[in-house]
Amino acid sequence: MEVKQVIVARTDLGMGKGKLAAQAAHASLAGVEESMRGHKDWYDEWDGQGQATVVVKAAGEEELMELMKRAKTMGLPSAIVRDRGLTQVEPGTVTCLAIGPAPASEIDKITGQLKLL
Amino acid sequence: MEVKQVIVARTDLGMGKGKLAAQAAHASLAGVEESMRGHKDWYDEWDGQGQATVVVKAAGEEELMELMKRAKTMGLPSAIVRDRGLTQVEPGTVTCLAIGPAPASEIDKITGQLKLL
Repeated sequence: MEVKQVIVARTDLGMGKGKLAAQAAHASLAGVEESMRGHKDWYDEWDGQGQATVVVKAAGEEELMELMKRAKTMGLPSAIVRDRGLTQVEPGTVTCLAIGPAPASEIDKITGQLKLL
Repeated sequence: MEVKQVIVARTDLGMGKGKLAAQAAHASLAGVEESMRGHKDWYDEWDGQGQATVVVKAAGEEELMELMKRAKTMGLPSAIVRDRGLTQVEPGTVTCLAIGPAPASEIDKITGQLKLL
């Protein structure tokens, strides 16, 4: 079973490369923590398979929240990142969503149509 | 004591935004694992302070390796990421280095002169 993590990043905030990379790192870690709590087997598979991680894009906060709602409904680990807003964006701004580590076939039902960043 | 994580990313590989974000996420997680193993107190501080993470740039593999060597000499947790090379870069290519979570004042002795990405 292929296991992956998908990070959904907002493209409407105009985050620079470094800012985006840091936010994606926060999201990834939060997703890993969620997965380890609820599905340690998925985390272990993901780790053993080389930690496949892809970053895709979404247009705004509403889309991110909708995707997270679907992940939760499907029982997939997910985590949203809110920036502290010290640079570039307003405090509390939602920047990224992580879904997984979880089975790729399940995540694809939610994020399969999103474009790679 | 301020604790942070610094991710050093190579800018000479021409990685796209999404690729870079995924590599930074790998580096961040690997750094966290190193820190939790050797300096759980630093990890806890970092987590409690909001997981400050910055991404800076380096020109190539040699520079990354030199920075990691200095981190190891100073006893700071560090981890290098090698890409599996399925996309964009050759297999085994070193893409990013994570230093910390560790005391900011210590990390700055190594990466203080590097520019933010």
